[in-house]
Amino acid sequence: MTEPVVGIIMGSQSDWPTMKEAADVLDELGVAYEARIVSAHRTPDRLWDYGKTAVDRGVQVIIAGAGGAAHLPGMMASKTRVPVIGVPVQTRALSGVDSLYSILQMPRGYPVATMAIGAPGAKNAGLMAAGILALQDAGLAQRLEDWRAALSASIPEVPVDE
Amino acid sequence: MTEPVVGIIMGSQSDWPTMKEAADVLDELGVAYEARIVSAHRTPDRLWDYGKTAVDRGVQVIIAGAGGAAHLPGMMASKTRVPVIGVPVQTRALSGVDSLYSILQMPRGYPVATMAIGAPGAKNAGLMAAGILALQDAGLAQRLEDWRAALSASIPEVPVDE
Amino acid sequence: MTEPVVGIIMGSQSDWPTMKEAADVLDELGVAYEARIVSAHRTPDRLWDYGKTAVDRGVQVIIAGAGGAAHLPGMMASKTRVPVIGVPVQTRALSGVDSLYSILQMPRGYPVATMAIGAPGAKNAGLMAAGILALQDAGLAQRLEDWRAALSASIPEVPVDE
Amino acid sequence: MTEPVVGIIMGSQSDWPTMKEAADVLDELGVAYEARIVSAHRTPDRLWDYGKTAVDRGVQVIIAGAGGAAHLPGMMASKTRVPVIGVPVQTRALSGVDSLYSILQMPRGYPVATMAIGAPGAKNAGLMAAGILALQDAGLAQRLEDWRAALSASIPEVPVDE
Amino acid sequence: MTEPVVGIIMGSQSDWPTMKEAADVLDELGVAYEARIVSAHRTPDRLWDYGKTAVDRGVQVIIAGAGGAAHLPGMMASKTRVPVIGVPVQTRALSGVDSLYSILQMPRGYPVATMAIGAPGAKNAGLMAAGILALQDAGLAQRLEDWRAALSASIPEVPVDE
Amino acid sequence: MTEPVVGIIMGSQSDWPTMKEAADVLDELGVAYEARIVSAHRTPDRLWDYGKTAVDRGVQVIIAGAGGAAHLPGMMASKTRVPVIGVPVQTRALSGVDSLYSILQMPRGYPVATMAIGAPGAKNAGLMAAGILALQDAGLAQRLEDWRAALSASIPEVPVDE
Amino acid sequence: MTEPVVGIIMGSQSDWPTMKEAADVLDELGVAYEARIVSAHRTPDRLWDYGKTAVDRGVQVIIAGAGGAAHLPGMMASKTRVPVIGVPVQTRALSGVDSLYSILQMPRGYPVATMAIGAPGAKNAGLMAAGILALQDAGLAQRLEDWRAALSASIPEVPVDE
Amino acid sequence: MTEPVVGIIMGSQSDWPTMKEAADVLDELGVAYEARIVSAHRTPDRLWDYGKTAVDRGVQVIIAGAGGAAHLPGMMASKTRVPVIGVPVQTRALSGVDSLYSILQMPRGYPVATMAIGAPGAKNAGLMAAGILALQDAGLAQRLEDWRAALSASIPEVPVDE
Repeated sequence: MTEPVVGIIMGSQSDWPTMKEAADVLDELGVAYEARIVSAHRTPDRLWDYGKTAVDRGVQVIIAGAGGAAHLPGMMASKTRVPVIGVPVQTRALSGVDSLYSILQMPRGYPVATMAIGAPGAKNAGLMAAGILALQDAGLAQRLEDWRAALSASIPEVPVDE
Repeated sequence: MTEPVVGIIMGSQSDWPTMKEAADVLDELGVAYEARIVSAHRTPDRLWDYGKTAVDRGVQVIIAGAGGAAHLPGMMASKTRVPVIGVPVQTRALSGVDSLYSILQMPRGYPVATMAIGAPGAKNAGLMAAGILALQDAGLAQRLEDWRAALSASIPEVPVDE
Repeated sequence: MTEPVVGIIMGSQSDWPTMKEAADVLDELGVAYEARIVSAHRTPDRLWDYGKTAVDRGVQVIIAGAGGAAHLPGMMASKTRVPVIGVPVQTRALSGVDSLYSILQMPRGYPVATMAIGAPGAKNAGLMAAGILALQDAGLAQRLEDWRAALSASIPEVPVDE
Repeated sequence: MTEPVVGIIMGSQSDWPTMKEAADVLDELGVAYEARIVSAHRTPDRLWDYGKTAVDRGVQVIIAGAGGAAHLPGMMASKTRVPVIGVPVQTRALSGVDSLYSILQMPRGYPVATMAIGAPGAKNAGLMAAGILALQDAGLAQRLEDWRAALSASIPEVPVDE
Repeated sequence: MTEPVVGIIMGSQSDWPTMKEAADVLDELGVAYEARIVSAHRTPDRLWDYGKTAVDRGVQVIIAGAGGAAHLPGMMASKTRVPVIGVPVQTRALSGVDSLYSILQMPRGYPVATMAIGAPGAKNAGLMAAGILALQDAGLAQRLEDWRAALSASIPEVPVDE
Repeated sequence: MTEPVVGIIMGSQSDWPTMKEAADVLDELGVAYEARIVSAHRTPDRLWDYGKTAVDRGVQVIIAGAGGAAHLPGMMASKTRVPVIGVPVQTRALSGVDSLYSILQMPRGYPVATMAIGAPGAKNAGLMAAGILALQDAGLAQRLEDWRAALSASIPEVPVDE
Repeated sequence: MTEPVVGIIMGSQSDWPTMKEAADVLDELGVAYEARIVSAHRTPDRLWDYGKTAVDRGVQVIIAGAGGAAHLPGMMASKTRVPVIGVPVQTRALSGVDSLYSILQMPRGYPVATMAIGAPGAKNAGLMAAGILALQDAGLAQRLEDWRAALSASIPEVPVDE
Repeated sequence: MTEPVVGIIMGSQSDWPTMKEAADVLDELGVAYEARIVSAHRTPDRLWDYGKTAVDRGVQVIIAGAGGAAHLPGMMASKTRVPVIGVPVQTRALSGVDSLYSILQMPRGYPVATMAIGAPGAKNAGLMAAGILALQDAGLAQRLEDWRAALSASIPEVPVDE
């Protein structure tokens, strides 16, 4: 079995319906990944371990989704040089603006590649991971080009009443 | 020398002009404290150690100030049961609303006692720490009552042109 | 019967479904509390009395929830040195941002320990109260540590489809 | 000397440069007023007394300015049936949006007539007070009509380079 | 039949479910009013006429509700010295913040007494109108005091599960 | 058959329920239009072609609707001197404020005539297009005047309970 | 002398430094315009007259700038079928978001072509007016194309240190 | 001379003071880059060419900074599978929230790795680019680890008065 090169981590089981879009598009593109719940606040040691071992385990991109005071992506970026892509999960009171600011506004030194709020952001996180990996994988590069071309070709010229 | 019962921590030297208001009011009230730079992202292990040893070192309240993706207060709340008071430091682009949401919107399990944005919040963090400690220190309780009475008595009845 | 050491107050009966999360977690942790409706605007004298008698009645922490122009937590903080924890109740038009700013942005002198908007904030208010009381109650400290450890242990490693 | 029919109250001396615009326009219109510092948090009993005695003292309109967690206008509205006009004073971090929400979002039962943020709002508070008093004072009604006509007449037709 | 002393105007039939709260509380307090649709954009001449004739028709307070680019309250304030109370109607995309800013942020010279967003604001508009009229009507003043006392007396001490 | 003088373009089929209001009002006013899906990101070359050929094809006004990072209106404005009217489609997390800022905040040189968020904006886009074309079409000018007069005449004087 | 085909109107002399950018670009493009102060609140009758006579006077586009509760563009759109372009002038407390919402969020029937906040929006208003007029003026169309081409050609390839 | 593997592009010369932080950190880390002005609106064909040739020219990461209706990063993401990192440049009226939403809220299919607003985001964009390239360059990986270790080591333990 292929070792995962992408780690999809999230703060809680409740983030999975959002984050599954990242997993699904990686499946489509043939990229091996693992999905894990890593809560910055409830399982900080799990976060620590994940970050410290990422390079050695061959994880090349980490996709981290979280909501509210979303510390997971930024703390992971602090623990490893592996690129971290952050997905702000939509929240009830503040619609994910709290998640967004907690993920986006990182200080100099620890970037998080922030995606759109919610499910579109999760899907794009998968595509961004694929784009990064494609830099050193010609086959994946071709599959990504094809995926993009197919999306483009699927757009009808004229809108239709529903 | 008295052991510190309050820990004032902050993400960066640049937060000190704000956080100093907390230190100053603790000085006024005769509460022993220590001030430390503990960056969630740049010195995560320092954060870990501070949190793990807080109870044993006799720290009874932690005041944590940070700006932007302000993960310090919440991560500290994850590492220790010692009450954590958070101060959102004002930021350039987003006026501290990013700091506020990153500190305030903690998930169930890990409260951060969030104060107003900026220097007023830092001063109030000192007063909140004193109020907590006063529950078990009658002398401090009296000094806090006096401080509040003096503030109240200082308000003139009529505004004056400046 | 044990005298209440925590007072849970709220501006209106309609805040109770939110504030009940504070009560529930205090029940879990074995902390005695009372729940009262104290409307800053509709029953200002009740607020006055509550604040003036809090110390003598042995109330050690006040949890105050309110929505909209949420003046209850701040006015209570003006009337007593007992630590006040504020819970911004979510509102219809402004999602609780009005409640948040009315509670959070206190001037120097009268801190309110503000929690997250809505039910997560109410639960965390209970935990913050417990953390404050645990400073002088070793049994409660242990129960709180256990509660936190149990929460941490409950997090599965891998997300599951729902 | 004429008894004041308008009370201009504010939370702090620092609000006076804003609130003075209300006083100035009342001077222009020949309306007697008093200006007082009444801090909701620092001098709550002063607030109580002001509210309780307002009707008997002949105060017919109260203009209340405050910033941040601006509880003064709403608490005053809770204590007296005299119409309360609220002025949200501009603040450093949140530009007065915190003041605005704290003043505006009053629950059913206790209206505050909220004006624009800052100095324009203070001037308009004076004009609103005059408009209310003019309902029972034909002379003032005429002076207010003249003031408005003069303002209208002062507007040039063509803009000029500065 | 009693001539109306309060005019409740609104930009559209769709505002009536909100504005009816103003009408209902005026009914409770025995204040005569009229309700009219006056659209600033669709019936500007109706707005003009309403404003010009208000004083002569004996209208003493105008309550104006509108949503979105809510120009009705401010334009009415431009046309008459009769006090105008504005109610920002909640909107779909922006929750009434658009209505609020359009009503609140009036320039010097033309105040609008702005109420909370939505139905609570409409009810408070009725109460504010009553408070203004009570300045010259002792019977109404008493009814308003009684209404407020009854509201206060209706608040239970202890919240109940629903 | 009449050649279209208005082009209604949108980023996705999902925008059509909103944009159809523009089409409907152009139908009412007898203005010939075409409706096309032109995605800035998924079909950029289609966007290029549409912009380059617009003048020669006789398109006189372009109505462009899009949501989120809504680049279609602004990019179209970059490619043609034909006036572009932008409609910010309402979005899930940010209510269309993201769409609005992406469309509105164009740099000097490339204006987009931005309409209200959502369906009201789409309808107004149709009316704005008609108003522009009416400058050189007396018949359309009359039909537009009539449409406006009918709208005005349709407003009842008194609201009714629903 | 050429009759003005564009009317640049603004709520106050203080808007002129912003609105002058519209005038300047019309000068560059050889479009005749007039500049007038028309305050919606202070000179409502001037607004009425301007709107009523616009068509007959040959005004083909109206550019209206205003700040705060910016009613001028929308009220003008209510009075004439001539296309109205709105410019939200930047404000002190709310940075022009108040101006923006007051101009943008027009109800169905009365579109305002809203531009970016502040001076860039004013310049673009001039360009939008030119684009509209160019539909029936081949010379202007050519001058506008040239202006756009010159802007494009002026952009250097490589940034330089300042 | 080394061929550039990172392309730093920006919408305008005025973005360079911000974007230079990306260039500087790439210099520190020994990563070859080029800096170009590519305006989405003023030079759309330049954008097209840049995107189309990026892969063949060996560009492996594109850093795109823009302000306001910031279409450059997203349009570039539409034209090439090379990973695009977006930097929202701070703006005058909206502090860069307009830039942020225009860059961040991309639809499914075309991710932009969004960084914090302003200069911190630009520096982090350089670090994110380095992190991506380090996946296939052990020397760069080591230099990046060293850079991070040095940053961490530079943080003093105790804040000092300034």
